[in-house]
Amino acid sequence: MKLFDASVYAARRANLMAALGKGVALFPGSVEQAFNYKSNTYPFRQDSSFLYYFGFSQPGLSGIIDADSGKSILVGNDADIEDVVWMGPQPAMRDRIKQIGADEFIPAESLHGYMHGKSIHYLPPYHADRIFYLAELLNKSTEEIKSGHSMELVRAVIKQRSHKAPEEIDQMEQALYITAAIHTQIRKSVAPGKYEAQIRGIAEGVAFANQARLAYQAICTIQGQTLHNNDYHRLLKEGDMLLCDIGAENIMGYAGDITRSYPVSPTFSSMQAEIYDLVLKAEMKSIEAVKAGVRYLDIHLGAARIIAEGLKQIGLMKGDVDEAVAAGAHALFFPHGLGHMIGLDVHDLENLGENYVGYDDTVQRSQQFGTAYLRMARALEPGFVITVEPGIYFIPELIDMWQDEGKFKDFICYDKLDPYRNFTGIRIEDNVLVTTDGPVILGPPIPKMRSDIER
Amino acid sequence: MKLFDASVYAARRANLMAALGKGVALFPGSVEQAFNYKSNTYPFRQDSSFLYYFGFSQPGLSGIIDADSGKSILVGNDADIEDVVWMGPQPAMRDRIKQIGADEFIPAESLHGYMHGKSIHYLPPYHADRIFYLAELLNKSTEEIKSGHSMELVRAVIKQRSHKAPEEIDQMEQALYITAAIHTQIRKSVAPGKYEAQIRGIAEGVAFANQARLAYQAICTIQGQTLHNNDYHRLLKEGDMLLCDIGAENIMGYAGDITRSYPVSPTFSSMQAEIYDLVLKAEMKSIEAVKAGVRYLDIHLGAARIIAEGLKQIGLMKGDVDEAVAAGAHALFFPHGLGHMIGLDVHDLENLGENYVGYDDTVQRSQQFGTAYLRMARALEPGFVITVEPGIYFIPELIDMWQDEGKFKDFICYDKLDPYRNFTGIRIEDNVLVTTDGPVILGPPIPKMRSDIER
Repeated sequence: MKLFDASVYAARRANLMAALGKGVALFPGSVEQAFNYKSNTYPFRQDSSFLYYFGFSQPGLSGIIDADSGKSILVGNDADIEDVVWMGPQPAMRDRIKQIGADEFIPAESLHGYMHGKSIHYLPPYHADRIFYLAELLNKSTEEIKSGHSMELVRAVIKQRSHKAPEEIDQMEQALYITAAIHTQIRKSVAPGKYEAQIRGIAEGVAFANQARLAYQAICTIQGQTLHNNDYHRLLKEGDMLLCDIGAENIMGYAGDITRSYPVSPTFSSMQAEIYDLVLKAEMKSIEAVKAGVRYLDIHLGAARIIAEGLKQIGLMKGDVDEAVAAGAHALFFPHGLGHMIGLDVHDLENLGENYVGYDDTVQRSQQFGTAYLRMARALEPGFVITVEPGIYFIPELIDMWQDEGKFKDFICYDKLDPYRNFTGIRIEDNVLVTTDGPVILGPPIPKMRSDIER
Repeated sequence: MKLFDASVYAARRANLMAALGKGVALFPGSVEQAFNYKSNTYPFRQDSSFLYYFGFSQPGLSGIIDADSGKSILVGNDADIEDVVWMGPQPAMRDRIKQIGADEFIPAESLHGYMHGKSIHYLPPYHADRIFYLAELLNKSTEEIKSGHSMELVRAVIKQRSHKAPEEIDQMEQALYITAAIHTQIRKSVAPGKYEAQIRGIAEGVAFANQARLAYQAICTIQGQTLHNNDYHRLLKEGDMLLCDIGAENIMGYAGDITRSYPVSPTFSSMQAEIYDLVLKAEMKSIEAVKAGVRYLDIHLGAARIIAEGLKQIGLMKGDVDEAVAAGAHALFFPHGLGHMIGLDVHDLENLGENYVGYDDTVQRSQQFGTAYLRMARALEPGFVITVEPGIYFIPELIDMWQDEGKFKDFICYDKLDPYRNFTGIRIEDNVLVTTDGPVILGPPIPKMRSDIER
C-alpha cells in the first residue's frame, strides 16, 4: 500500500469538481471478487478511478466528490476486533481522510441517506455486484443502473486521466523497470525442452519479488498466432517462436505492457529473421511517428503499409500497397490494432467506453476487419501514454477461410503461404509517452534487436 | 485442460439423477470475472460442481442433468472465426459431449426455451453475474433467484462430492506433490534480509511450472497472528517466524492446503521451539484421532485441550484445562477451527452452505468465539478429506481487549504474556483422508519436525 501526497488527490478531485460544476460524483470502490466460492477470492484490485481520486487499495470503501457542497467524502467503516484478528490492524477512517486530503468520512450505512435527493453521477459499473450495490443505494432497478451512468462524468474522467502527470509517469517507469526485469529473466530462460508454463511462472515470481503483480494475464506461448492465448501447457521445441506479452502492475496500480518474441533455438531461422525484422521496422517507424497532433489511426495505417510493403518484397503479398491496405488485405497478417492508451488500466479507461477514449468527432471507428480492433485512433495529445505493438501472424484457419472465399486474391499470394502455415506469430511492443517534441519510450531499454536476443 | 474418462462423468450424473428422482438440475458454468474492466479478466476458474459433473474448464458453458428425461445435456456454442483468431481453435460441441459421455448439446440461445415449464433445481450462485443469468433464463426477479436455490440439490451434491473417489484422491495427491515442491523451495529460501514478497513469488512460479496455480491467496507472512494476512511487503529479520499457508490447485482443479512455519534465523529460539512443539503435538495427535465415525468437533476440542494443557505447563494458562476449554479461554491463543473439508474447493462445497457440509442434526454450531469458526464438526465418513491445522497466536489487540474486560482471568496468565506480544503465530497443517481404519496423510511427507526445518 502506497499513496501519493494528499495534495495530489485533493487537486485531482478539485479539477473534477470544477469540470462537473454541480451534482455529486459517486465512486463505488471495488469489492472482493469470488474465485470458486464467496470467501475464496481473487487478489483484490481496486477500481482505477477510485484509486485515481481516493488512493486506497482496500475493499469496502467508496468516495464522493460533491460539486454542490465542494466537499470530498470517504465512505467506509473502521475495523472491528474480528477484522483485526483475520485481516490485521487497519488505519482509522479519521486518519485515512488526512492521508488523501479529503474533507470528511461517513460510515457505509449513512451513504444511502446522503445520496437522497441529490443528482448522482456514476461511471459504468463492470462488476455485476456494483450494479446491485448502486441499485440499492439509489433506489433504482438494476436495469436503470445499467443504462444510467453519467456521460458527463465519463467525459470528465477520461479527459483528466488521459493526460498523465509527472508523478504518474514516474510510476509507469517503475512498472516498466519491473516488466523489464521479467523479460530479462525470461530471455535468459528460453530453451528447447522447457514448458511454456515454466517460463510463464518466472513472470509472477519476479513481479511478486518487486512488490508488484501482473497487469493482465500473461501471454507466453509458442502459438502466438492465437492473439489472446492464455494456455501454457506446450513444450518449447527447436525452431519455435516464443511470444511473450507480459506487463507488471506496480504497487500503486500503474501498468506496463511489453511484448517480445524470442526464438526457442539460439538463433532465428532465415524465415523467422525476415519476418522479425519487418515487425521491428514497423514498430520502430511507428514509434518515431508518435507526436502530439498526429492521429494514431494514421500511424496504425502507416504500420500496415510497412508490413504490406515488406510482405510484398518477401513475396507473400502483391499489387499496390496503398490499395491493399485501404481494402484491408494486410489484416490477414496484422489483424489487430497498433495500440491503446495505458495507465492505471492496461487498456486505460476502457470500462468508460473505448470509443470515448480513442475516438472523437473527427475519427470514426472503422468497420473493416483488423482496423476495427484499433482502440486508439484520435489525434494524440501531450501526456498520453500509448502502446505501439505491431505483429505479423499466420493463422491457418483465417488463411483457409479467406482463400476459400477468394478474398483479396489480387493482394495475397495464397500459393506462397504453405511454408508459413506453422510459422505462428511475432509481435514487438513498447510503451510510449506523447510529447509535443515526439516520442519518449518509457522504462529501461528492453532488448529487441535480433543480435541482442539471439544466444 | 485434462478430463477424467467419460464414464466417470456419466456415472456421477447418473448418481445425481437417481438422488433427485425428478426435475431438472441446471449447472451454470462460471464466466470470466473482471479485474479492473470487463475485458481484463482474472484467470478463469470453472465452478467446481460444473467441473465435477461436466469436466470442462472453459467459460460460456452450462450443464443440464434432466432427471425427467434421463438425459445429460451440455449447453454452449461452437467457436466462430473471431474466437479462433483471439482464443485459438476449440473442440466442437459434438466432440465435447463424447469426451464427457453426455447425451446431447444445445446452443446457449436454446436454453431459455428448454427450461420453460420445467421444475428447475440450481445451487446458490456466488457470482453476481450468475444471478442476472438465472433471472433472465428462468423469468424470475434477481431477488427470487437469490433465495430460490434448491435445498434438495444442495444436499444431493454435498452428499456426492463429500466422498472422494479413488480417481479424485489421485488428483489430490498430485496437487499435494506440487504443494510440497513449493514448500521445499520456500524452506530453502527463507533468510533474513529477504522480503515476504520474494518468498511469496516462489509459490506462483513453482505452481505454474507444474501446470498448476494456487488454490487460494497464499499466506506468507512474519505477522502470522493476522489469520488471513495477504500482505507481503515486510522484511524478514533474525528472530522472526515466517508462516506459510500455501496450496496448489492442480490442472484438474483439486486443491492442496498446507501450512508450515519456519524460523527466519537458522534455528528456533527456545521460546519459539516450545510453542512450535506444542502446535506440532496438537497437529499430530489430532491426525491420529481422525477416523470414520469420530466427530470432528471432538477432535477440535481435543486439540484445544492439548494446547491449553501445554500453555499451562509453559505458564501462560492456569486452572482446570477441561473447564478452560469448555469456557473457550483457549481461543485467545487458538481462535479458529481445527480444519475443513477439502476437494475441488479448498473449503470444499462452502458455497453450498458451511453448515450443511460440516454440521448435521446431531451437531449444532457453537456460538463461542473460536469454536464458532469451526467449519467441520460432524462425524467423519470414509472418503472425506479434511485439513488438520491447529495454531497458536499472540494477537496484541485481542489480548488487550480481553484483559481490559477481565475475561477468563482465572484461566489466562495475562501478567506472563508481555514477552510474547511480538511472538506472532505458528500454524502447522496437513490434509488427511478419512478411512474406517484411521487417517491417511495425503501427499509426500513435507518436513515439519523442528530438526528437519532448522538450517
